[in-house]
Amino acid sequence: MRATTLNGPFDIQLSDLPDPHLHRPTDALVRVTASCVCGSDLWPYRGINDIKPGQRMGHEFVGIVEEVGDEVTTVRPGDFVIAPFVWSDNTCRVCRAGIHTSCENGGWWGARDREGLPVDAGQGEFVRVPLADGTLVATGSVPADELVPDLLTLSDVMGTGWHCAVSAGVRVGDTVAVVGDGAVGLCAVLAATMLGAARVVAMSRHEARSTIAVEFGATDVVPQRGEAGVARVRALTEGLGVDVALECVGTPESMRTALDLVRDGGRIGFVGVPHDIELPIEDLFRRNVSIGGGVAPVRAYLPDLRDRVLAGEIHPGRVFDLTLPLAEVPEAYAAMHERRATKAMLLP
Amino acid sequence: MRATTLNGPFDIQLSDLPDPHLHRPTDALVRVTASCVCGSDLWPYRGINDIKPGQRMGHEFVGIVEEVGDEVTTVRPGDFVIAPFVWSDNTCRVCRAGIHTSCENGGWWGARDREGLPVDAGQGEFVRVPLADGTLVATGSVPADELVPDLLTLSDVMGTGWHCAVSAGVRVGDTVAVVGDGAVGLCAVLAATMLGAARVVAMSRHEARSTIAVEFGATDVVPQRGEAGVARVRALTEGLGVDVALECVGTPESMRTALDLVRDGGRIGFVGVPHDIELPIEDLFRRNVSIGGGVAPVRAYLPDLRDRVLAGEIHPGRVFDLTLPLAEVPEAYAAMHERRATKAMLLP
Repeated sequence: MRATTLNGPFDIQLSDLPDPHLHRPTDALVRVTASCVCGSDLWPYRGINDIKPGQRMGHEFVGIVEEVGDEVTTVRPGDFVIAPFVWSDNTCRVCRAGIHTSCENGGWWGARDREGLPVDAGQGEFVRVPLADGTLVATGSVPADELVPDLLTLSDVMGTGWHCAVSAGVRVGDTVAVVGDGAVGLCAVLAATMLGAARVVAMSRHEARSTIAVEFGATDVVPQRGEAGVARVRALTEGLGVDVALECVGTPESMRTALDLVRDGGRIGFVGVPHDIELPIEDLFRRNVSIGGGVAPVRAYLPDLRDRVLAGEIHPGRVFDLTLPLAEVPEAYAAMHERRATKAMLLP
Repeated sequence: MRATTLNGPFDIQLSDLPDPHLHRPTDALVRVTASCVCGSDLWPYRGINDIKPGQRMGHEFVGIVEEVGDEVTTVRPGDFVIAPFVWSDNTCRVCRAGIHTSCENGGWWGARDREGLPVDAGQGEFVRVPLADGTLVATGSVPADELVPDLLTLSDVMGTGWHCAVSAGVRVGDTVAVVGDGAVGLCAVLAATMLGAARVVAMSRHEARSTIAVEFGATDVVPQRGEAGVARVRALTEGLGVDVALECVGTPESMRTALDLVRDGGRIGFVGVPHDIELPIEDLFRRNVSIGGGVAPVRAYLPDLRDRVLAGEIHPGRVFDLTLPLAEVPEAYAAMHERRATKAMLLP
């Protein structure tokens, strides 16, 4: 089969690799019908994270089940399934507590499982899915093509934006500011709106993105950054600051902005993978600002969000602004790296 | 009047000072009938915090209203009142959000107000109370003597322990570990019990304190510290860790213990004034551990906790294990500094 590999900084390609097949009775084999490139894929692409030459890429995909092991009971061949960006058993104590990303038996796409077997990644033609019952979430029937982008976001960005808002405890009537207008930030705007926020401020200076933010429920768009952006949001709240700031980037600057935006006693949700961030605990203490979030256990939210998509209640797939065939995966990465695209979808 | 001053490290004394009187129509004059020494008073006492020679000490007191300004409506002469450890207006936007410690018009006992007028501290005979309506909480009638210690804890330690548990979102059925067996830690045990925790683990190796912890609802006492303590608590939870850790000390060691005790997806409440703590944000992110708390807005909780004390539902005054006349305030500090007392009460 063909699947995406990273061989060095900016050296991404579609490679010919052995076809995967079932290894264990709990496995499923999935034919990928749509995958996408994540903002976090750009860290190794840019050489900021270590690269293991030939490493498999992609952790967001949907597809059709081709074959299942003898012990798989919740999905069967022909099912349309959504894969979360971490595989998990959905039965251990940690999964039962809703933290599937810390599953006692799970792991990451493109790595190896606990017994050393390689696990495929998402940007390819086929994936062997370990712990298929715990990992995959099926739709009742094969969905219409126009729903596929919406469902694909449930692999990561929509569940991650939702986790950010849930972790910050967004409540009906809250004023919320979202720092970051990438796909996750836009989904956080949508999540805050769904949770009943009365006012959602999107920090965005990209017109295409702020247009989507408004579609997703943003009541205000603030294009300024840093201190000017903080001053603008503070002015919108008569100097008080927002009840909740959703940090969806992961840089020291974005966290500083979130801290400066939030009122005393407010809450910060954070889902941007933190890079060189130091949390000022004395400031959090003095101002009673809480912080919660982390690597999103999207599997926990998938059934609910799937139902909302299938009911036509939300359209998070609007975050895709580029669709390419898998064969053009290098261009998908380049477009996102160069900020020509917010999020790129790959079709077979 | 006589009031406590700190003149240098370990140099605490009862000094003769001018009698306070009303300055503003929103002031009240309170005769202190009981005050106490806080663990946080030991930081300047030990010379770890800066000392301004002659600085007034004490931020926890109850007393009888002697006189009120023309604009004071909620308390009147003869009322028994409880003072929170920060004075506040209880009407600004931040107070209305429940964060009285960030009041737009409030301040600290023993400091100066926004117009430069000195504000008395609690360890003395009289206190001019600014913003009396917003600050003081009265009981319906003068309470029996045996309730005074319980009511005095609502000035700080009980409200602070409560804030820790509330900030961590302790829920019915949770397993909670409390790090720190000082008065605040013991009150956090009580708070977690009141909020419905199914299991409350007190980290305590002092028999007198662990006895109170058990009275306050602790189901388990773990005397070990550091890694051994973590191993013991992990064993109690079959390796998983606790749902909630309440950090009531404020040192790097106590925060490390809290982080190591809590399960993935768990919550840390913190109310120990942080000293040299660095929060490991990558660890919080990877494990989805949230953290909340800060300087406790005890005024927000005072009416509810007062009612629980008056109803005989809770007896937080058990944390006092030394009672001295105000004249012996140096011994009260020395006893707490030398850990001969958990918390010392001062009576006129």
